[in-house]
Amino acid sequence: MASTGKPVITLLTDFGLLDPYVGIMKGVILGICPDARIVDLTHDVIPYQILQAAFLLEQSWPYFPAGTIHVVVVDPGVGTARRPLLMEAGGHYFIGPDNGVFSLLKPTAIYELMPDGPPASNTFHGRDVFAPAAARLVLGEVGAKPVAGYVRLAVDPETVLHIDRFGNVITGLKAAGFHGTVTANGTLVQRRVATYADAPMGELFLIEGSSGHLEIALNQGSAAERLGVGVGSALHVVR
Amino acid sequence: MASTGKPVITLLTDFGLLDPYVGIMKGVILGICPDARIVDLTHDVIPYQILQAAFLLEQSWPYFPAGTIHVVVVDPGVGTARRPLLMEAGGHYFIGPDNGVFSLLKPTAIYELMPDGPPASNTFHGRDVFAPAAARLVLGEVGAKPVAGYVRLAVDPETVLHIDRFGNVITGLKAAGFHGTVTANGTLVQRRVATYADAPMGELFLIEGSSGHLEIALNQGSAAERLGVGVGSALHVVR
Amino acid sequence: MASTGKPVITLLTDFGLLDPYVGIMKGVILGICPDARIVDLTHDVIPYQILQAAFLLEQSWPYFPAGTIHVVVVDPGVGTARRPLLMEAGGHYFIGPDNGVFSLLKPTAIYELMPDGPPASNTFHGRDVFAPAAARLVLGEVGAKPVAGYVRLAVDPETVLHIDRFGNVITGLKAAGFHGTVTANGTLVQRRVATYADAPMGELFLIEGSSGHLEIALNQGSAAERLGVGVGSALHVVR
Repeated sequence: MASTGKPVITLLTDFGLLDPYVGIMKGVILGICPDARIVDLTHDVIPYQILQAAFLLEQSWPYFPAGTIHVVVVDPGVGTARRPLLMEAGGHYFIGPDNGVFSLLKPTAIYELMPDGPPASNTFHGRDVFAPAAARLVLGEVGAKPVAGYVRLAVDPETVLHIDRFGNVITGLKAAGFHGTVTANGTLVQRRVATYADAPMGELFLIEGSSGHLEIALNQGSAAERLGVGVGSALHVVR
Repeated sequence: MASTGKPVITLLTDFGLLDPYVGIMKGVILGICPDARIVDLTHDVIPYQILQAAFLLEQSWPYFPAGTIHVVVVDPGVGTARRPLLMEAGGHYFIGPDNGVFSLLKPTAIYELMPDGPPASNTFHGRDVFAPAAARLVLGEVGAKPVAGYVRLAVDPETVLHIDRFGNVITGLKAAGFHGTVTANGTLVQRRVATYADAPMGELFLIEGSSGHLEIALNQGSAAERLGVGVGSALHVVR
Repeated sequence: MASTGKPVITLLTDFGLLDPYVGIMKGVILGICPDARIVDLTHDVIPYQILQAAFLLEQSWPYFPAGTIHVVVVDPGVGTARRPLLMEAGGHYFIGPDNGVFSLLKPTAIYELMPDGPPASNTFHGRDVFAPAAARLVLGEVGAKPVAGYVRLAVDPETVLHIDRFGNVITGLKAAGFHGTVTANGTLVQRRVATYADAPMGELFLIEGSSGHLEIALNQGSAAERLGVGVGSALHVVR
C-alpha cells in the first residue's frame, strides 16, 4: 500500500489560515516523512460543508501525479465515532473521515485506518489521526483493514456546489451535453458562451468552467452577488 | 549551533498574505539554503499582538521535528533598537525580535544575533535580518553571542489569547485540572464537555482545546461572536 | 534555456486561496518536475489589476536565487488571443500573458511560448498553459520562439500601486531622491521619516518602504483608510 518515489501529500480542510492548525499538520507529516512535498488545495471550505469539500476534491486530484495522497479534514462530527478512511481511486490515495467527503470518488479499494492507539485529543484529528496516517502511508507503515462500504451523500445536480473567488456560481451540472437554461433565485440565465471574454459586460451567462461543471458567471463581476445565491442554493433547470 | 539533516524552517508573522512579504522571506531563505523546507504557521497574527504570537508559537512548535527553526516576526517597534534573538528550547531553535514573542518559551540558551552589517532597510527585518539568520543557522554560519536575559511579558491566564477560525475563544487557562466556571463579558459559562459533539446545539460550553488550553466554544457556531469578546478581553474565573 | 540546480518557481496570481486553483497549478508542476520548490508570492492581487501585479513582481523577484522562474497569472482577457510569454531579465525567468504584467521588467530576451497543442480549456491558462511551461522550462523542454516586443503599460508614478496589509499606501514614486510632498484625496502629507517608529502616533507621514518606493503610512494605523484611497487612486506631488 506504500506510495513510492517523491511523495506528494495534499491538504483540503475547513481550518482556514488564521490558525496554525494547517502548519501543525505539516509539522507532524515532516516529522514522520521528511521527504514529503505538501501542497494546500484550500483551507477555506465553508465550515462543515461536506459536499463543497467533495466537489473541490473532485476538481483537484486528477491534476496531481499518480500516487499522490489527498488528506481531507472537514468534519462537523469530530469527536464522535466516525471511522477514519483510506481509499484508492485512479491511482491516488485518499484519507479522511467517513462522513461523505469522498462522495464523488469512484474508489477501487476502501480501508478503515487502524491507529496504534487512541488519538491524543478528541478535537484535532487532522493532527492526531489523518496527518500521521498520510505520512506513514508513504513509509508503508500504516495500519488499515478493508471495509465494505462508506458514506456517500447524494449530490443534487440542481444545486450550487461552490462559489469561487470571482463570484462564479459552480453548479452540480456537467457542462458537456447540457443545452438548457438555469433559473437561480428567480433569475433566468439563458446565454451560453465558450469563454468569459465572449460575454458582454454586465450580463449573466452560462459557461463550462475549468472543472467541467456548468457555471453561472458575469464578465468581470460576481454572479453570486448579482443572483443572491450561496453554496447549497437550489437551481431550477429547463432542458 | 548548526541544525543538521533536512532543515525545516517555520514562519509566524503578522504580515498577512495580501502582500509578497512572506514569499520574499522564502526567496531569501532558499537563496542561502536551497534545501530548506519552509512551513507557514500563520501570517494572520493580529498586527502587533505579541502575546497572541507567543501563544500560537507555544501551540505549534512541539509538533515539528527536533532541530526545526521557528522564525517569528511580529514587531510593532521595527526600526527601533530591538535586539534580534536566537534561542534554543526543547531541541528547537527560535529566531525573532526581543519584544516578548518568546514569553512562553523555556529557553536553555539565549543569543543575540550578530548581523554582518547594518540591515538593508529599517522597515523589513523579516527579509533583511531574520530570514537570512534562519538560513545561515542551517549552514552553521550565523553569528551570535550569548546574552543573559530577554523580554518576557506576563501572561494573565484570565485573558483571551486567541480566537480561532471557528470562533472558539482560547483562554490563558490550562484545561487540565481546571474545574471552575468562566464569565466572559457578563455571560457565565458552566457546562464542561469532552468533545464538541457532546454539546447541545446553540449552548456555550468549556472544553479542553487541542492546545491544552481551556476554550469557550459553541457547537457549530462562533462563541466569540455570541460573547462579544476578542483577543485581549478579560475573563472572570470562579474555581 | 533550461534553468539548472534546484529549481524555484514562484506564483503570483489573482486567484485567491478560497479555491483550489493555486493548488492545482502546483499539482501540474510537480507532475512534470518533481524537484520544483514552489513559493507563493501572493494570490490576492485585486482581480484584473495588471499594474498592481507588475509592481508586486518588481518588488519580489530580486530576492530570489538566480534562475528562479516567476509565473504571473493575472489575466482579465483569458480566452482571448493573448500570447503566452517567456522572458529573461536579471538572470531570472518570467512566464505569463502578454497583457502588461511585465511592464516593470527590463528583459534581455523575449519569447512567445509554443504549446504542443490547444489548451485543455479556455478558462484556466494557469493550469493548462503557464504551469506546464514553467515545469518544462526546468527540464529544458519548453517550446518558445523569439519575438520583438511585448505589451508595456505606462505606469504613472503619481498613482497608488498597492495597499499593503497594514494600510500603507505604496506609490509609484521612487523614494530615493524624492524631497517633495504628496497630496492624496485632498490631504497633504509633508512629514518624512526614516522608520515607522520615528513617527508620532496618529499622524500621516512619508517613508521609504521596503520596496524602495515612497509610501504614505500611519504609525500603527491604516493610512489608506484615513485617506480614503485605493489601488489606482491619483496622487498630487509638489517637489
